[in-house]
Amino acid sequence: VINAEKSEFNEDQAACCQISIRRREPGLEEDEEWLILCSTQFLTGCYWALFDGHGGPEAAIIASNYLHYCIKQKLEEVVGGITEARPPMHLSRHCVCDSDPQFVEEKHIHAADLVVGALENAFQECDEVIGQEMEATKQMGGCTALAALYFQGKLFVANAGDSRAILVLKDSIVPMSCEFTPETERQRIQHLAFLFPKLLDGEFTRFEFPRRLKGNDVGQKVLYRDYFMEGWGYKTVEKADLKYPLVHGHGKQARLLGTLAVSRGLGDHQLKVIDTNIEVKPFLSCIPKVNVFDFALHDIKEDDVLIMATDGLWDVLCNKEVAHVVRSFLAENRADPHRFSELAKHLVCRARGKKRGHQWMLDDSHEASYDDISVFVIPLHNRDED
Amino acid sequence: VINAEKSEFNEDQAACCQISIRRREPGLEEDEEWLILCSTQFLTGCYWALFDGHGGPEAAIIASNYLHYCIKQKLEEVVGGITEARPPMHLSRHCVCDSDPQFVEEKHIHAADLVVGALENAFQECDEVIGQEMEATKQMGGCTALAALYFQGKLFVANAGDSRAILVLKDSIVPMSCEFTPETERQRIQHLAFLFPKLLDGEFTRFEFPRRLKGNDVGQKVLYRDYFMEGWGYKTVEKADLKYPLVHGHGKQARLLGTLAVSRGLGDHQLKVIDTNIEVKPFLSCIPKVNVFDFALHDIKEDDVLIMATDGLWDVLCNKEVAHVVRSFLAENRADPHRFSELAKHLVCRARGKKRGHQWMLDDSHEASYDDISVFVIPLHNRDED
Repeated sequence: VINAEKSEFNEDQAACCQISIRRREPGLEEDEEWLILCSTQFLTGCYWALFDGHGGPEAAIIASNYLHYCIKQKLEEVVGGITEARPPMHLSRHCVCDSDPQFVEEKHIHAADLVVGALENAFQECDEVIGQEMEATKQMGGCTALAALYFQGKLFVANAGDSRAILVLKDSIVPMSCEFTPETERQRIQHLAFLFPKLLDGEFTRFEFPRRLKGNDVGQKVLYRDYFMEGWGYKTVEKADLKYPLVHGHGKQARLLGTLAVSRGLGDHQLKVIDTNIEVKPFLSCIPKVNVFDFALHDIKEDDVLIMATDGLWDVLCNKEVAHVVRSFLAENRADPHRFSELAKHLVCRARGKKRGHQWMLDDSHEASYDDISVFVIPLHNRDED
Repeated sequence: VINAEKSEFNEDQAACCQISIRRREPGLEEDEEWLILCSTQFLTGCYWALFDGHGGPEAAIIASNYLHYCIKQKLEEVVGGITEARPPMHLSRHCVCDSDPQFVEEKHIHAADLVVGALENAFQECDEVIGQEMEATKQMGGCTALAALYFQGKLFVANAGDSRAILVLKDSIVPMSCEFTPETERQRIQHLAFLFPKLLDGEFTRFEFPRRLKGNDVGQKVLYRDYFMEGWGYKTVEKADLKYPLVHGHGKQARLLGTLAVSRGLGDHQLKVIDTNIEVKPFLSCIPKVNVFDFALHDIKEDDVLIMATDGLWDVLCNKEVAHVVRSFLAENRADPHRFSELAKHLVCRARGKKRGHQWMLDDSHEASYDDISVFVIPLHNRDED
């Protein structure tokens, strides 16, 4: 994992570690804990995460220091239910109702669902920790979070923000995350403003228009969308519609409250819209979407890898282009024991481009990425021998 | 379209008609309207809809009488933008800003998006009409709504409820809707209860558990889900968790507030949870999800059809089984000019099963559908000659 180093301050952070979950046998007393410590009652997982900070690197740094700990904690809280395919209704395994196993089966609850729930809760916990830390040190800012956990034969990818993870397999590309931006989450954001209009403090309009409206649009019927619409309609423009839109701009320019380019992530507890008292946090979500990949269902080949990267990479290279680079690089460097980390560097350099005069350009003479770029390349083969 | 006629009162309703949209030329004065009427300034569409009533057939009847009118009205409001691939920013086509066409293009707004928006708005409008009609006549009840509109070379399917539409093509099945039930919309419903706890009036818990909790679960850690979780976790049971769950039950037994089996639809403005003051309507949505099928992108064969049916059919036959019945029936009856309506009857009879003693059974000796069953079979070939 390296960074492009174009900007003065790098706001990307990465983390990677083993996570060991101690199994507490139900009914075992505290003073018998040495028994557990002596035995091999640990489940281990591998963790990788990328954090893309904004408004300073602080939130990303705290997240990179704490998220794995929150995940470990949340997994330990449910570990008693994780070791079998079907979690018990009661963590104590004490059966209150004879048909409890049947209820669990009917709801299709599997051990993997406990890991997903633990990740969802861990992101929330980590967001609270960041809020406390930032308040205590009077710091500002937030970050996106993309975390991958290899645990019990499955890969869990939890994402809150606009980083991305894909599996590049021999014959296919498997997206393991989707991006959360003001554009992709427009309806959720507009709906919240509809339910709680005070959040906009009369300064913003919740409607979306193709462009910011002007005085001479008033009285005209122009294209618009409200929270419940995936389609478009026409609305007669009133003076209130000239306010700045809650979600505005297109693609990389899309902004929430004119302030933020992402709609999910950690931190930003103190963030207000400039020159106003309007808080951004109510519109942000710290909840990740978790995708699961079950290795038992796939035949993993030697060069199959998980690629995780911040938006700096994906802004200039699409999934297909990245997969092409990955496959050809690994095929050409099969003898190199460091080929996976070399590939990560290679991908970063591709996205960073080359300096031509004052501009950074890609090989195909498109403009290169000006953002920080971080990339993980994680080999999937021989998982349990690593 | 026929019904199974097992219950005393049939709560299913169907509607089908042509919808003509009058084009108003911008700038044309009212007294010039005879000009329009004399010319062929009409766009026509074909409309089919199914409504599955609950708490009586009244809402379904009103919906079947009004929804097409609401759709016509909403389409007429935007018709000026529909006739070209790219709708203009201003309905008047008066250009305020030179780059308006570019903004519309950047947002990828197409004429079809105006139809989608019109359908979304029409459902909302129809819901209001039903609310007024039911209040005026002191009637109760609601209904699901599944509407298909063939317009400008595209098929639009708008769904609010648990009916279903699929295209059965020669080599594939294309789902044109998804079901909205308390189970599929659990997170939306729980989130609303999280934002507005008063809606539950202290009578319900917003948490989901695999089964209703009992007194001897208190103090134990049991499986649960909150609004932000797709996974599961363990929660220490408090007394408040013994309340009836906001979303409870599984599959066909799933209920919203112990009352309703669907989470979207029209009507139900007066519906309260029995023996309480708790309103169900805030948790219901009348907004449809609209799916679009573009005939220009597909080579439609002679036996390709759209199947629309209420849950009475889909409860006992899956998409694949229906497709199999459709293909073999149409292949066997190619000479029959009424084969499409015969197929609809055939499908209803299949789902209704045969009476054996006091029970209705399917051919494969599974239990047959006890619900009302309504089916449309709509041929897709030779569309413009029909």
